[in-house]
Order: sequence, then structure tokens, then C-alpha cells
Amino acid sequence: MVIILNSHADENDIQSLSAALASRGHRVFCSLFHDRYVLSLQAGAAIDEQQIKAFDCVDRVVAVDTEYRLANRAVKPEGTRITVGQAEFGGSRPVVIAGPCSVENREQMLRAADIVARHGAQVLRAGAFKPRTSPYSFQGLEERGLELLAEARERTGLPIITEVLDAGDVEMVAGYADILQIGSRNMKNYKLLKAVGALDKPVMLKRGMASELNELLLSAEYILSGGNGNVILCERGIRTFSDFSRNTLDLNIVPAVKQASHLPIIVDPSHGTGRRDLVAPMSLAALACGADGLIVEVHPEPDKSLSDADQAIGEETFARLMSQSRDVLSWRTQNDPTPVNSFN
Amino acid sequence: MVIILNSHADENDIQSLSAALASRGHRVFCSLFHDRYVLSLQAGAAIDEQQIKAFDCVDRVVAVDTEYRLANRAVKPEGTRITVGQAEFGGSRPVVIAGPCSVENREQMLRAADIVARHGAQVLRAGAFKPRTSPYSFQGLEERGLELLAEARERTGLPIITEVLDAGDVEMVAGYADILQIGSRNMKNYKLLKAVGALDKPVMLKRGMASELNELLLSAEYILSGGNGNVILCERGIRTFSDFSRNTLDLNIVPAVKQASHLPIIVDPSHGTGRRDLVAPMSLAALACGADGLIVEVHPEPDKSLSDADQAIGEETFARLMSQSRDVLSWRTQNDPTPVNSFN
Amino acid sequence: MVIILNSHADENDIQSLSAALASRGHRVFCSLFHDRYVLSLQAGAAIDEQQIKAFDCVDRVVAVDTEYRLANRAVKPEGTRITVGQAEFGGSRPVVIAGPCSVENREQMLRAADIVARHGAQVLRAGAFKPRTSPYSFQGLEERGLELLAEARERTGLPIITEVLDAGDVEMVAGYADILQIGSRNMKNYKLLKAVGALDKPVMLKRGMASELNELLLSAEYILSGGNGNVILCERGIRTFSDFSRNTLDLNIVPAVKQASHLPIIVDPSHGTGRRDLVAPMSLAALACGADGLIVEVHPEPDKSLSDADQAIGEETFARLMSQSRDVLSWRTQNDPTPVNSFN
Amino acid sequence: MVIILNSHADENDIQSLSAALASRGHRVFCSLFHDRYVLSLQAGAAIDEQQIKAFDCVDRVVAVDTEYRLANRAVKPEGTRITVGQAEFGGSRPVVIAGPCSVENREQMLRAADIVARHGAQVLRAGAFKPRTSPYSFQGLEERGLELLAEARERTGLPIITEVLDAGDVEMVAGYADILQIGSRNMKNYKLLKAVGALDKPVMLKRGMASELNELLLSAEYILSGGNGNVILCERGIRTFSDFSRNTLDLNIVPAVKQASHLPIIVDPSHGTGRRDLVAPMSLAALACGADGLIVEVHPEPDKSLSDADQAIGEETFARLMSQSRDVLSWRTQNDPTPVNSFN
Repeated sequence: MVIILNSHADENDIQSLSAALASRGHRVFCSLFHDRYVLSLQAGAAIDEQQIKAFDCVDRVVAVDTEYRLANRAVKPEGTRITVGQAEFGGSRPVVIAGPCSVENREQMLRAADIVARHGAQVLRAGAFKPRTSPYSFQGLEERGLELLAEARERTGLPIITEVLDAGDVEMVAGYADILQIGSRNMKNYKLLKAVGALDKPVMLKRGMASELNELLLSAEYILSGGNGNVILCERGIRTFSDFSRNTLDLNIVPAVKQASHLPIIVDPSHGTGRRDLVAPMSLAALACGADGLIVEVHPEPDKSLSDADQAIGEETFARLMSQSRDVLSWRTQNDPTPVNSFN
Repeated sequence: MVIILNSHADENDIQSLSAALASRGHRVFCSLFHDRYVLSLQAGAAIDEQQIKAFDCVDRVVAVDTEYRLANRAVKPEGTRITVGQAEFGGSRPVVIAGPCSVENREQMLRAADIVARHGAQVLRAGAFKPRTSPYSFQGLEERGLELLAEARERTGLPIITEVLDAGDVEMVAGYADILQIGSRNMKNYKLLKAVGALDKPVMLKRGMASELNELLLSAEYILSGGNGNVILCERGIRTFSDFSRNTLDLNIVPAVKQASHLPIIVDPSHGTGRRDLVAPMSLAALACGADGLIVEVHPEPDKSLSDADQAIGEETFARLMSQSRDVLSWRTQNDPTPVNSFN
Repeated sequence: MVIILNSHADENDIQSLSAALASRGHRVFCSLFHDRYVLSLQAGAAIDEQQIKAFDCVDRVVAVDTEYRLANRAVKPEGTRITVGQAEFGGSRPVVIAGPCSVENREQMLRAADIVARHGAQVLRAGAFKPRTSPYSFQGLEERGLELLAEARERTGLPIITEVLDAGDVEMVAGYADILQIGSRNMKNYKLLKAVGALDKPVMLKRGMASELNELLLSAEYILSGGNGNVILCERGIRTFSDFSRNTLDLNIVPAVKQASHLPIIVDPSHGTGRRDLVAPMSLAALACGADGLIVEVHPEPDKSLSDADQAIGEETFARLMSQSRDVLSWRTQNDPTPVNSFN
Repeated sequence: MVIILNSHADENDIQSLSAALASRGHRVFCSLFHDRYVLSLQAGAAIDEQQIKAFDCVDRVVAVDTEYRLANRAVKPEGTRITVGQAEFGGSRPVVIAGPCSVENREQMLRAADIVARHGAQVLRAGAFKPRTSPYSFQGLEERGLELLAEARERTGLPIITEVLDAGDVEMVAGYADILQIGSRNMKNYKLLKAVGALDKPVMLKRGMASELNELLLSAEYILSGGNGNVILCERGIRTFSDFSRNTLDLNIVPAVKQASHLPIIVDPSHGTGRRDLVAPMSLAALACGADGLIVEVHPEPDKSLSDADQAIGEETFARLMSQSRDVLSWRTQNDPTPVNSFN
């Protein structure tokens, strides 16, 4: 059960409605979805819908039959749009996020940022805290990396996205980033999800390597039920037996998310395939099946990348990808303004 | 090691060259690739390239370092094109194959054929021999189904593709079909592969549910090394942990095949996802990443389909898909005439 | 619905009962389960149980709610026992099948047979028809291999098991083999399953690399519903992301089959792991969780094996394995005479 | 490269050796392995082995060619033994850890502890902080749960193991627990791994649901390289296509870990299969292939369990399992005192 308040509901309205629900034994989660407050009740709570509607501040009540209540498309059939700088996730024009895997040094960061800006990406990415399989691998420049990212933002005007690895770092990283990234290894780090759920910054949540669609949406639900409605999902490849690509990018989840949820979903073809030569074709495929954007690894000198060198593309390939993307996008804008309905 | 003969080489040339190779202990496989004969030697054979080139009938010698020698792109960098009726697999214009999962009866077959023809598909599909998980399920109309397919071909002018399940049935099925389909369950039925390798009819080979790229190309190699160069590959979904779709359609294999092999590859979004609502978006994605065509289940009354009812689409959805495909295709024709090179 | 006839029912009884069922529109499959005839009806058939019981030849009627009716444990709660020479599959004493992957030549075959017999295995295995991923790999000695196997049987007194790849070869292979093996690649080769279902020889059916438990039992059902009740299942490893072993041997299926079906199940740790050093520990684990036997690759000179050299063990390791197995088996005999019930 | 100091090396020795290494540009990680200090150097560091051996405090230098250097078996061929109360992980007698999934309330906890102690388990388990897929599910009693666990320890004398979810909670949880559990969702939570690596308490590290053997050992390496040598690995099932069990318990990793690493490994058949009826047979299989112990969910009233009710077993089944385990163990003690060598 989800209760959507009308647009002029205020804190007092929420408090009195919440108190009324609590007095009947319901546990209530309150979220802000852009212009609207939304209350969700713990599963299994029987409730008299008419009594709820009697409250002036209530716009409508939605019965949701999945475990993910706030992430369910029924709650917001028109889809969620999240604006960051010039980028609008979930809007009519897909967003391109690009940049190097890691911030390595000032020169590399600024060169990469210039490439990304020059060819029309709307958001700049780079990692300052790197989750590495081996304790002996380069672990990122940490806060110094965030400072360099901030300098790149000033220089290019592009908003920045970077990964946060631990609940204890959320405040610090949020001091720099415009969008916080939760990596695939942390999709089920619930303490971290709760920590970013308490912010009002956009969060990009990557699908875990062995995660079902249902689990991805429930991890999003942790953030939404904490009060942060600005969640962008990201497909980045799953683990399968198949070994010609490092991971198996599962584009099927793009239209499946569009059916199940109102949240925007973007695609990471760089980690998703782990092969530089597959980045461009899979980017175009992602856009063609309805993705709300891409996140691509671009490096000024791909072969010298300190991490994930095999999957970063250079300026020339990126420029061609941006040009080809525009054609697919222009086709999509004309043909498919409401992708959800057209899939039925 | 692969030896490509020049275009005017004849049977006598092949025999004398083969004899010379055999006398030095090499085992030779001879294939006809449209206009050219190609000889491949068993792996590991050391050979003096200069001596081979001394034969008049030899055009060039290609050293191939993968187990799939004849399927390797190096053997035919320009790509293989296979023409069947109006369809050209591997050409500039992707092919759409469509039709019901099974031939159920005359009326259903002819209605389906009319729909498929009316909206511009180039090839008609339907199964007469059905591989079914349960012995108690409908197993197809067998030869009676092939007769109905042939009647649909006469009526619409479309060439037909249908599955053959067993080496013992190849001759009979080939008497009706324009393209023989090897299903995913039979990708490693080597006796069947050898049997279709002895024909000169085009063969569509579906990837097995747990098959690596390498294994798919080696199964193609069984057909090629038998002398039949007309092999069309088909991605139809793999088995993974993910359960929101019945299978995980693995589009990554499309650009990967383009790098590795000269054979055309098409995509089956119907079996590949098992969800009717994912067929259209994944079809567009397949075309955007370079697929040479689609094979789609279309049924006059999808909900009454005797097999795979969940994944068949009806006329309205098919018509919209064909229209949207044309846009993606026209974009591809302008932007991506040589998809292989553009992936580098 | 499954109808079990009493032990003195004869062909006439079956014919009159089948005719009565057919006249009411039911499609009937008749199998011989050792001493009993069993009839199964196509799914969904509504039937008056009392009328069936009125036939003198009917012992009992079992309502089965899975798709695999004849393979269902409910049909034969005490379990199926299949005797071949000294081996009893499904009995109190697990069976060990051993031998080389392929028959390579007379000397290798006879040396391997001697090792296998000397250390107490009850059945000899070797492949004469080899399904190989590459057309350029050694494909087996074919009928000459079967002759050598037969010679090894005469010499050692051990019954032999060997693989049949194609429905067209069944009669010939059955002329030599005591048990026919259906390999994992052919688990869904339904024509082949029907062909061996028409024999009364024991059949060992290997699980496909991406096969569910349900699918394995339905493939067994093809054989059972053809009238051949002598089916032995075999777990041989599945395809997963995990790469430290060539396949992931899934022992969980052993107790799961014991719950679901009356058919015996054995385990192949050689193909199941693809690692020689894992064969012995996984064999012991298989026996400890209730497997009815093992099938192990043993070669006189493992490193010289023409196929699957990495997974064959030599005489010394095999001798130690047989000795350790006996201890686990003696423990099982004392502690777990009815493994199925003890799992509840 | 790993440098093992002799048993009387002290802090001063370490400092001077580390300084010497650092002055040549090496990054050094120091760990305490029970009675010995061990230094590992960052990968790729070229070094003069003779110069290192010249230091008095150096016992031996081991060249390790895997990324996991400290976890590599070569560093400690005799295997690591970790003693907690009466339990010795890695010793001759496998350890049984048992208890409920979650601490639910005082009565349930104490009843469960009594059952566990009565039938001979050596360690008590229960979760106070529960990682739950849905934000609306029961999340554990948190610190109140730890207090109840501590009360159960006093009552039974059994040491306790419980999960810690976040680096920020490590100190608090370590105040109660005898062994800290890192759950499968957190196997790649490197901040958490570093936090427990700074303690000297034993840590049980569960394999992630999509984790390779190599990745498991590298996660262990995070703990070892932080200075905590007391790591116990745990197999708990992986994600595969197979759906008759909730996860696919991968026992193959037990002997594979014994080859690759000196760390003890135990098995969790409860999460590993997710089926109550598979717990006992897979426990016996785990012991037969060399596992150093089991961790089993036992609940006084399994059907009323607040979490994972399908996989918990009750007192009667647990008692029978303990009795059967003793037989397998007694067999192992006699036959397989050095499992590693016997696998070769």
C-alpha cells in the first residue's frame, strides 16, 4: 500500500497522517518524490482505504502487489525524471556519462574531462575510491581524487558522478559529488543504501553481478524508503558461463525495468562487456531498446589506464560513438516518445 | 592453415592438390564458399607455404590461429553473403524471418503466412518437427506440416525455414525447406551437423543454451568442413541465474561474432527472452548492434498458440516492429556500411 | 495419472485396457518396469478412477502431479533396481564404472580393463563414438572400438557401457553394449531417447550442461514412456560462471533426485570437475550424499590420453579411491539403508 | 614474494627490515600468522632474495606466483589451525557450528543454544544484524541480539559467531563475538575486510554468490595483509541457472581450496541449498570431501523461524546428522589425516 500526498501537503500533514497510521499499528516510510511526499506501509498491513482518502492531504492510494512498493511503476506511471545540470535522466533525451575509470593524476583527469565535454557528454565520471579485487592493486587517490574531480567540474561545467564505498564516507563524498554511485559489489550493502537514502542527492545504483531484477528494485527501495526518490538504476553486466566477454551485458533488463518501475535505467557497456571493441555496438543497442543513458569509460590514453585498461575507449572512438548515438536518439525521439506503452 | 583456391579452380585442381597434401600426411577438408573452393588442414599440420602457393589453382594461403579455421574472419574478411529469395543474409539490409512456432493446421498456417508477407518479412518460419521437453506435449505435424509450409510458400512467394531434428530426417526435410534450421538443443549433435554439411542448402545454426562463442563457431565448422559454406548463426538466449526473462538474450555475441567470423548472425528475441513484451525492444537493439536479421514468432492469435504462447506476438505488434525496424535499418545503412571495422 | 498393473497381467490385459482407455479419448503410453506393466495417460486427461480399478489386471492407480509421471517416486516408492552382471544400480551397494574416455587401441583398452577389474569396479566404460567440439579432433574408433570393448569384456568378465550418438546407430551399438550411454549433449535429442526407449537394455542418461532437474526427469520420461524402465541417471557437472573447475559438479541433485524419482542416480566426477586432483574427494562426497554409483575415467597412462587427459586418473589413485570408497560404503550400508526416508 | 620471519623476530626486526625494503621502493604488508610474522610485497616488485635472507630475523623467502600471496598454500604447507574454545578449525576433527538464522527473542535463543550444545556442536551461531533483501523485512535485534547471544554463551559454554555488516560496527560486534562472520553479500566490501583485518579475532569469510575461487582468496588476502591470520573460509552456494535448490552448493571448492591455500574451509549446507531435506546429505558430502567443518541452521521450531524458515532443521534431524557425521569423521580420521597430499 502506497499513499501519494497532493502537491501542497506539508510537514504537518505528514505528521498527523503518520500518527494516525501508527496508532493503528502500521509502520510508515516517508519519501519525497520531487514535488510529492509518498508514504509506504510495511507489507501485509490491512487498512481501510476510505479512511485514508478522507485525509485532505491525500491525493491517491495505490495498492501495490510487489515487494518493491515505492519503486513500482504503478506509483508513478509517467516515470521519474531526475535533472542534474544539463542532464535529465528519464527524459526524452538519453544522457551520456563519460570519463576515466579512476582519477589517476591532475593531467589525466583534466585531459579526460576536456574530451568528454568536447564531444557532448552531459556528466563526467571518475573513481576516487576504487573497490579492487586484490589488496595490492591501486585503490584510488581518495579525497585528493575528489578535489581533482571538482576542479574538472569547474573547468568544464559538467556535473560529476563518483563512487562511495562505505557508509562512513557518504558525507565526505557527497560534499564533492553531484551524483553518488553505488557500485555492483555494494548493491546489497544495506547500511550504505540507507546512508544515501537519507540524502537528497541523486544516486546511481548498479546491478550486482548475480542480482535478479527483483533484488535490484528492492535495493532501490532501501533508498526510496529512506526518503530519497532520486534513484537511477544501471545495468553493468552479470556473471554467466559465457567467457568471450568479461561479463554478460544483460540489455533485456532495460525494457523489463520500464515495465516494472518508474525509475530511469542507464547502461554501462564498458564494465558490461569488458571489451573495448564491444563498447560502441552495445551502446547503440542499449539506446535502441530504451535505455535512459549510458556510462562509458573514456581515457586520454586507454592503453595506459591504471585500471580496466581493456575496456576504456579513446577520443576518436568516443567521438564516433557520440555521433552515432545522436542518430539513434533522434530516431527514438520521433518514434518512441512513450517507450513503456509501445512495449505492450 | 586454410588454402583458398582461385575462382576458376575445378575438381581436377582440387584432386591433385589434395593428393599432394595427403601424400605429405595432411588430412584435408574441402568446402565450397559460394564461388570459391577452400581447403582446410587438420590442426597442427606443419607445412611449407611456398610449396602450396606454387600450385596454379591456389589464390592465397591463410594461417589461422583458432580452432575454427573455415569460420574465421581472416578467411573471408569481406563477410559471407547468403541469398535466399529476396533475402540476403550478411548484406546491407537485415533480413526478417517470421511465422508461428509450430504449424498447427492449414488455416493457422496460411493466416500467419499472410500476416508475415503483408508486413514485409522476407522469409517464413514454422516448425513441423518440434523438440519438446515432455514426451506428452504436442510434437508437431511432421511431414504433413511440411506440406502446409510448402503451400504457404506457393501462396506468398516467401522462402521457408523449418527445423530438422535428426540426421535420418535431413533428406526428407530438405525436400521442402529453403533453409534448414538446427535448433539449440542440437547445436552439438555432430551427426546432424555432418548431414547438413553434405548439402548445399543454407543452414541456420542456433547457439546452444550453454554454449560458448568458440563452441558455436566449431559447430559451424562441422558444416563448413563438410563442404557447405552457407551457414547463418543465430543467438537465441542462454541459461543464466536471471529469471525475469525465460532466457538471457546475449546480444554481446553479435559484435563478437562480427570480429571473429565472416558468417552472418541473426537474433531470435522470441525464444531469447520468452516474454512477448520484450520482443520489440530487443529486436531493435539487435539491429542497432549489427545483427544481420531477426527471427520472430508471429501468430494470428498469440494466446491460442499450441507452443510458446507467452512469446508470440500478434499482427499489430509485428506491424509496428517492422515499421520501427525500417528506421533503425535505414540509419544503419547510412552510418555503418562496414560494421566490423567501425567496431575497432 | 499412472496405472500400475498387477504382476500377472499379460499382453491381452494391456490391449483390452488400452482399448477401453483409447475409446474414451485417452492417449496411453505403456512401459515395462521390470516385473510390472505401467500405463501412463497424457497430461490433463480426466478419468474415472473407479472404472479403471474395476479391471482385474489393475493393481493400483497413482495420481501424479508432476509432468514426469513414470519417473515420479510415487509410482515406485521402493526405488528401481537395475542389475547388470555383478552390478546392481539402486541397490544397497553403490556401483563403480571405470575405464578410459576413449578406446584408443587394443593395448590401451586391455590394459585399462585389467586395471579396472583388478581393483574391483563392476562395469567397464570406454567411448567408441566420441562427440567432439571440433571437427578436427579424434572422433573415436567407431565399430572397431566396440569390438575391442567386447574383447575386454570377454577377458575381464565385466559388462560394458558405451555411448551412442545417433538414433541411426542404436541397433548397432546395442549389439555390443550391456548399457547404452546417452551423453550430456544428447539429453534433449528426443529421437535418440525414443530409439533407446524401444529397447529393453539399460540406459544411462547424463544430465545436460544447462539442464534443470525437471528436464532431466522428462528426458528419462521419454525412455520410460517408450516402454524401457531401465534408466540410470547421471550427474556430470553443469555450466556456471565458476572457472576453477571445468564444470561445476552439482551433487545437490543426488538427494533431490532421491526425493523426486525412483530412478537410480550415479555421479561422474571426471567430467564433472575436469580436474584429476578433484576426482577422489568428489567421489567420496557423491557416495556420502547417497549416489548409487560412480563413473570414473581411468587410463593406464593418463598423460597420454587422446581425449580429456586432464581428468583421467591412473592405477595408483584409482586403487586408493576404491579402498576409500569401500569405507564410505560400509558406513552407508550400516547407517542409511533407506536414504530417501532419512532425508525427510 | 613473501618473507617469513623466524619465531623470535620482534617489532624492531620488522621495523628495520621494512625500512630497508621501503628504501628500495617496495610497499610492505605485515601479518601475524599465529607464532610468526610474515611480510608480503606488492606484486611486481623485483628483489634480490639473497639480500633479504641476509637479515637475521628472516626464516625463509617464498616466491608466490598467484595474486593471493599470504593465502597461498606455499606459505604454510602444513595448513592453518585456528582454535576457538573446544573447536579447532583446520585440525583433524571437523567443527560443527549450529544455531538459528536470527536471534528472535530470549526464549528462542536459549532453547536453540541448548539443542546445539546437547548434541555436540562446538560453536553457537545466530544473527543479530541481518542483511535482508527487502527494507520491509525483519532486520535483526541488533545490539540486544548480541546480549542474548552472550547470555547463551555463558549458559552453554560455547563460543559464539555472529555477522558484522559494516566497518562502523566492527568494534561493537567484536566486543561480543568470538568469531566475526563476513556474509556473502559483503565478500567484496573491502572497507569491512580491512576493518576485521586490523583485529586479532578469528573471521569467517563467506564466498560471494558469484565469486570465483581466486576472488575469495583475494578477499581473504585483504584480512591477512592487514595482519589478521585467523581466517576461516566458508562455501555457501553460488547462483546458477539451476532452480531445484535455492543456491547451488559448490562442494568442488573444498578440495580446490585445500590445494590452493592453507586456510581452513567449512560449508554451509543450509544457505547453500535452501532446502531442509538436503541439509543432512550435503553435510555428509562436505565432510567426505575434506571440509574442516559445517555451519548449520538449527531452530527449536523450524516452521516458525522469522527468516529462512525453509532451510532450518529441528532437533531430531540435527541429532541424527550429528550422529551420522561422527561416523564419517571417524572414517576420515583413520583414512585421510593429510587430505591435501592424498588428492595429488
